[in-house]
Formats: sequence, structure tokens, C-alpha cells
Amino acid sequence: MKKIGITDTTLRDGHQSLWATRMRTEDMLPILRELDDAGYHSLEVWGGATFDVCLRFLGEDPWERLRLIKSEVKKTPLQMLLRGQSLVGYQHYPDDVVREFIQLSVKNGIDIIRIFDALNDVRNMVVPIQAAKEAGAHVQASVVYTISPVHTVEHYLETARELVKLGADSICIKDMAGLLTPLKAYKLVKLLKDELGVMIQLHTHYIGGMGTIAYVKAAEAGVDVIDTASVPLAFGASQPPVETVVRALGDYNFASDINIPHLFKIANYFEGIRKARGYERGITRISDMRVFEHQVPGGMISNLVSQLEEQKALNRIDEVLDEIPRVRAELGYPPLVTPTSQIVGTQAVLNVLSGERYKLVPGEVKAYVKGQYGKPPAEVDPLIQKKIIGDEIPLTERPADKLLPGLEKAENECAGLARSREDVLSYAVFPQVAKKFFLERQKGGSKSGVELKPANSKEDSKMNLKEIKEL
Amino acid sequence: MKKIGITDTTLRDGHQSLWATRMRTEDMLPILRELDDAGYHSLEVWGGATFDVCLRFLGEDPWERLRLIKSEVKKTPLQMLLRGQSLVGYQHYPDDVVREFIQLSVKNGIDIIRIFDALNDVRNMVVPIQAAKEAGAHVQASVVYTISPVHTVEHYLETARELVKLGADSICIKDMAGLLTPLKAYKLVKLLKDELGVMIQLHTHYIGGMGTIAYVKAAEAGVDVIDTASVPLAFGASQPPVETVVRALGDYNFASDINIPHLFKIANYFEGIRKARGYERGITRISDMRVFEHQVPGGMISNLVSQLEEQKALNRIDEVLDEIPRVRAELGYPPLVTPTSQIVGTQAVLNVLSGERYKLVPGEVKAYVKGQYGKPPAEVDPLIQKKIIGDEIPLTERPADKLLPGLEKAENECAGLARSREDVLSYAVFPQVAKKFFLERQKGGSKSGVELKPANSKEDSKMNLKEIKEL
Ligand SMILES: [Co+2]
Ligand SMILES: [Co+2]
Repeated sequence: MKKIGITDTTLRDGHQSLWATRMRTEDMLPILRELDDAGYHSLEVWGGATFDVCLRFLGEDPWERLRLIKSEVKKTPLQMLLRGQSLVGYQHYPDDVVREFIQLSVKNGIDIIRIFDALNDVRNMVVPIQAAKEAGAHVQASVVYTISPVHTVEHYLETARELVKLGADSICIKDMAGLLTPLKAYKLVKLLKDELGVMIQLHTHYIGGMGTIAYVKAAEAGVDVIDTASVPLAFGASQPPVETVVRALGDYNFASDINIPHLFKIANYFEGIRKARGYERGITRISDMRVFEHQVPGGMISNLVSQLEEQKALNRIDEVLDEIPRVRAELGYPPLVTPTSQIVGTQAVLNVLSGERYKLVPGEVKAYVKGQYGKPPAEVDPLIQKKIIGDEIPLTERPADKLLPGLEKAENECAGLARSREDVLSYAVFPQVAKKFFLERQKGGSKSGVELKPANSKEDSKMNLKEIKEL
Repeated sequence: MKKIGITDTTLRDGHQSLWATRMRTEDMLPILRELDDAGYHSLEVWGGATFDVCLRFLGEDPWERLRLIKSEVKKTPLQMLLRGQSLVGYQHYPDDVVREFIQLSVKNGIDIIRIFDALNDVRNMVVPIQAAKEAGAHVQASVVYTISPVHTVEHYLETARELVKLGADSICIKDMAGLLTPLKAYKLVKLLKDELGVMIQLHTHYIGGMGTIAYVKAAEAGVDVIDTASVPLAFGASQPPVETVVRALGDYNFASDINIPHLFKIANYFEGIRKARGYERGITRISDMRVFEHQVPGGMISNLVSQLEEQKALNRIDEVLDEIPRVRAELGYPPLVTPTSQIVGTQAVLNVLSGERYKLVPGEVKAYVKGQYGKPPAEVDPLIQKKIIGDEIPLTERPADKLLPGLEKAENECAGLARSREDVLSYAVFPQVAKKFFLERQKGGSKSGVELKPANSKEDSKMNLKEIKEL
């Protein structure tokens, strides 16, 4: 019997979900050998929000982090999360930027690239998959899991089938809000395993506590790999804890042979870092338990709370949580994941606070309705669409088809500041942030100067499309 | 298909596990109607440590609490936890005390009595079961779950079979340390269901997070009822959260029809009480994850930590956690539950701190080795036994057979102070504590005077056999 594989997400999703992505490279380096020796299927260490936060808040070069990690992790494949055509940013990038970013990711140490599109719009994943395959990476394409009238089991199967046709080496079921109940996890995994013939990995979040159960049922259905984090960075908005999951599967014939006492050494290390950095443990709040009603991922609830607090309107959180499913339905049931979680969440807050629905509509919501993120899963409510973009006809092509190449422009704009192709790509993805980082670096002030205190969790949890968290 | 039943433990095990049993009757009364309307199989509201804490710390009459609860809960059966021949105390009581205590428990409002013995020594449950049946209660007899060479599946089956023969209406699998892995839960429940033909209820604690998974697998195996708590008093050392469990089982054909939004109303109420009283949420610590090595229930770890802190020896916690399994093996593998958890834990602390194993041996350990708690599951190591009690021959009879009747003595001693038979029983179980309570009451000082601040969790977590917590 094949043993189940375990991916450790502590160095990416774990601290992104619980510590506002603020773990530093120096916090990671001392434990990498232990992680490498633990017997994980892979270590998710890069991508998602880590790239942005390195440059923007930590004064770190994300490419340098990746190379340092790779220099310590000799045996275990390194994995990253890529937001499809949005790479590690919040908008679609031109194909030339996408291709070279992916190529450099692999060159600098990534072995497995997990690619998703927030709308499960496969067109947004064609170029990333192709580029990742050409770069020699293992391509793991994702179906984003949500609940809606159009997100049927058939939708996931068809999406996954297309992704396999595009060349995906494996499929990830990405359940960012912890919505997979045990039986649904079992059935979905079983279906994909039976129909696709590729490796299936399940990614879920703890949130209301369904994740550990979903993993056991998914394992019974034959899932190949599951995602967990070390206990100090598990629970709450993060992944299920590896120690519990390994133990829970221990009696099955597909039990992982990861050594549990070894895991405690790792956990003790991260517990020390957690205390030193002043972060709280992950916890399940009552609002997290309500995730099946509002479907807002845990990290996003923190954002909502912060934004409402700033507006002195925290007492309206329940109205906002009630408004979110309405907005989501009207916008064609997008899964709530970066960036659609922010798009829907912001509109819901505005609808509640402004006193009139869709009176205020931010640019990102307009862009979404115009099709600039891809095709909504269901039709946008025609009345709402009219209210938002009038008679303008939404885009039906792949959004990136409308974008001009970006590399040469980036090269020119950051000439004299960029010291490498990697720098150029940092600039292409986050021009202002990268420029500021380059200037700090020239002054020799980077690396430690930017932010040494534990991040105030409120600081970056504003409902700001430029500073969003991802699950 | 029969629906699975859910017992709510918030008002007994929930606050006993997380709030040092400090929830007050006044905190309970406003939410009782909602709890009664939720559709629970039963509400566990009495027994365990609540009796002692009412009298000792809260200045409350536990019998009065029970009557008040009963006056509000009209539909849902009320349940209590009874420590077999130890009732709600820490030593064996004479049969006449046991019989009348149980009779009065039922008279004052208890419908279901869950009876356990720390050693699974069925002799200690004979009189309690008989008394409970005579009083007209539903008798739920427990097998205490632990892991050891002698705690085989057959041991549980045989113990349960004897309990059914003694008249138990249902069997509870009492997993106080959260040690039931999913497959073990499935197999044990299936076996008991197949062999016994009575209702099977599973009681587990969250601790390392296995509990929610164990419930789902137990449900698949046909378990009739499971124990949960409202989310603010769930997780950590307490029960799994009802909201997660009900949702997790929602897709099965035996799904509970408890209304989840109704549960949120209840959760919001308790969350308010939690904040007002200043208690922390339940959380899984790294040491809790190690429960499979040391088997020490979560509440007991807090005790160990407190005791070591007092001795300025917290740095030796790992030695103590390593010593516990050794002591437990030498003492014949008692399950670690009140009072054996304290017996083994105290001896382990003394072995580590005194620098010589069994140099210091407290009276309770001597009593245990003398057979005064019943028959150890396996032979006590002969060398250790010799060291502890010399050549004295341990008791082989039922311990209570050696006890003189206690009621008349209690009556006489508390004459003039006791106002009811219930008072006499309070006195019979906790003479000093009850006497102090009666005197306070006479002065009119009781009820609110004793302790109005949130309990300092350290205060009662001393390794003190008179003030122990139970799981
Ligand atoms: Co995630
Ligand atoms: Co318990």
C-alpha cells in the first residue's frame, strides 16, 4: 500500500494565515534541516503572499529567501503557490512576465508549482501551466472548492479534466475556507481519483475544525497528499496540525511514516519563534463556525473586522456577513479566494455602510464585472451589472490577451536599480514596492530596517486590494 | 435511519475542563431554555467536580443548582457524572451513603447517571448501578478507555458485558485523554454495538484534536450518542465543539437535526460569559499533542505545570512526562482519570524532584497499592509494591466492603447545621467543606461572598488530591 504524502505549509500558508505572512528568512533557516529530514512529500515555502510581504514589509529579497531555503533543503521538494495569471500579485500580468517569473522560480529552487485561478477559469491557467512544464517543474493545477448552485461535483471534475489535458501532473483540491465536509471530501477525492488517473492533493484550512476530519475521509478515498502545518502555526485560519493528522492516520495501512517525536522537535522550534515574535495561536471563533453560511475564509474575517473597526462600525459585522452571500450570488458565485474574496467583501462592506446597495462600487468590482479577472462561474445579475458598468459589454476573451507585453517596460523602468533578472521580475509584479525596496537596498538600509517588531495584525489586514491575504 | 444523539457537556465537563469548574448557577440559568430547545439527547449538568466546587469555592448549594436547572429544562434529560463508589468525591464511600446520594440525585432532577470506576473494577460499580436503577434513572455505565498491554479490545468488551449484566441501560466509552484514533473508535464502537445490543455513547476530549475525527468514525460504526460542548467551552482540554460535529455529520443519513443557527445563539451567550469571567479559549498545546506518549489528560498537565512552578522546577516537566508512563506501568497500568491520574502524577513528580524513585510515597499511592481503590488492571511491580507497602497483603475484596456505614455518623455530626437530607449527604461526602459552607450559610454570607473574581486557574490546580479536576 502506498503511504499518504504530507506537505508542510508552515513556511508559507501557516504564517500567512496566522502571522500576516511575517515569518522572516532568519526564522526559517535554523529549522530547515529538521524539516528536510522529517519525511515530508514537499515543503510549501514560497509564493502566495510571501513574495509581496518580503519586499513590502520585511525588507527581504524573496528570491534570496528561496535560494537560501534551497541551499538547506536537499531532499524534500520545494513547493510554491501561484495565483495563475496573477502570479504572486492581485491582477493579471502579461504572458511574457508570467513565463519568465515562473522560469526564474524554478531556476531559483522551486520543484512543485501549485497553480490556481480564483474563478476556476482554466484559460487563466494555460500559460502558467505551459511555462511551469517548460521550466521542468511538477505542475499541480488546482480546482478551487466552494459551495454554490453552479459548483457541482461535475464542475470540479470537468475543470480538473481540462487541467490534466493542459498538462497538469497532479490536481489540488483547494478548500481555502474549510468547507469540505467529511463525506463530500470522500466523494470528491474518490471521483477525481477514479476519473483522472493523476495524483490528487487536498489543501484545506482548519477554520471551524472540519479539516482534520476531511483529511481522514479523503485518505480513505485514496488521496495522495494532504497539507498540514506544525502545531504552533496550525489550527484557526491555518492548516490542520500535522501531529494530529499523522497520528489519526497511523492505524491505516496507508499511514505516513513521518516520525512523530521528530515533529515535536520542529514544533518546539516554531513555538519559540511564535513567542519571540509575539503571535497568538490559531483559534476557532464563533464567526469561523458560521463559515458555511457566509463562506468567508478565516483570514478574510480578520480583514472585515479590522475594516469595520476603523469605520467604528464593528457592530455591523453580522450585517456584512449576511450581505456577503447576497453579493456573491449577484456577482455569479465567485469562490471567495484571493482576489475575489476581497472583491466581494469590500462590496458587501460598502453596501452595508453606505446604506444603499451598489451605491459605491470600487474599481476592482467594476473590473471583475467587466470580465477582467475571467469568466464568473455563473451569470452576473443583469440589474446589478447594469448598475455597475452600465451598457458596457464584458470581456469574453482571456483577460491577458488584452495586455501588452510587460518585461521590456519593466526592464527600462528599473534600469540602474535592478541587479538581476529576478529584480526585474519583482519590479514587473510590484513596481512601486520593488522600487522602494531597491532604493532601500542601495542605501544599505534594507533587510532589517523595515519592521523589527511583531507585525500588528491590524496593520495589513485593511480591506486593501493591494495588501491582501490569501488562503 | 436513527439520528445520532448529541449530549451537551458545557455545563459540566466543558467548564470543568477549561474554567476550573467555575461556572456559576447564575451564569447557567439564562441559557437553559435555549439549551432545552436545541434538541440535545441530554444535558450533562451535574456531578464530577461541580459538586465539590459549588460547596468549596462558589458558596453554592449543589442540590439547589440542580433543582434550579431542572425547573428550566423541561424536555431534555439531565445527566450527571458519578465516580462509582467515590460518588463526586475522591475516596470510596460506604454503601449507605452511595445509595442515598444517588437516590437524592434522581429526586432532585437527574435523569441519566453516568457511572465509571477509574480502574474499570466492576465491583465498585455494583452498588451505584443498583441504586440508580432503583431510583428510576437511566443507568449509563462506563468503560474507561486507555492504552496499555492489558487494555485490549477484549477487556473493554468483557467489562461492558458485565456492566450490562449488572443492569446498565447503556454503555459509555469514556476517553478522557482523547486517545481514540479514528479507526480504533470505529472498531471499538462497532464491536460493542454488535455484541451488546444496548445504546453506546462516546465521550472524548479534544486535547490533540482527535476527538472530532473519532466522533465521525464512531458515528459511521453506529454510535448512538456523542458528547460535545458549545464552541466557547470546547476545544483544548474540553469536548469537541458541537457546531463542527453537527456539521460534519450533516451529510450522513444519521445526521443530527439540531439546528445550527440555534447553536450559535447558545455559543454567543457562553462567549459573553467567558469574556465577562475572564477565561481563555481551549487550545491545543504541544504537550497535549504528546498525549499518546504520556497519556496525561489535558487538565492534569495544567496541574503538573502548576505544581512544578510552585517548586520552581517547571524545567523538569519533560522528565515528569517521561516518568509518568514508567510509574503507570509499575502500578499496573491504571487508566489516568480521577483519582488515578493524580495518584500516578504525584508519584511521578516526587520521583523526579526527590532524586530517588519511590523515596517519598504519598498516602494515596499507598492506599492504591493496598487495593483500596480496587484491583489494578495489571499486577503492581512486586519490587515497587514491596518498597511502598512492605510485606502487607493488599486487599482483594471490594474496598467498600471494609467501610462502616456512614449516614448515621454524618447525621449526628452535622446536626443543627444541615437543613435537609441533601445537606446530610453533602456532609457525608465532604465533611469539612460542607460544614464550612453550612456555617457561612447560617451567617447569611454564602452564595456570593466566597469568590467573585474569575478563578485564578492556578489556585485549584495544585496537585492536591482534595482539589482535583476530572475529565
Ligand atoms: Co491555503
Ligand atoms: Co470528560
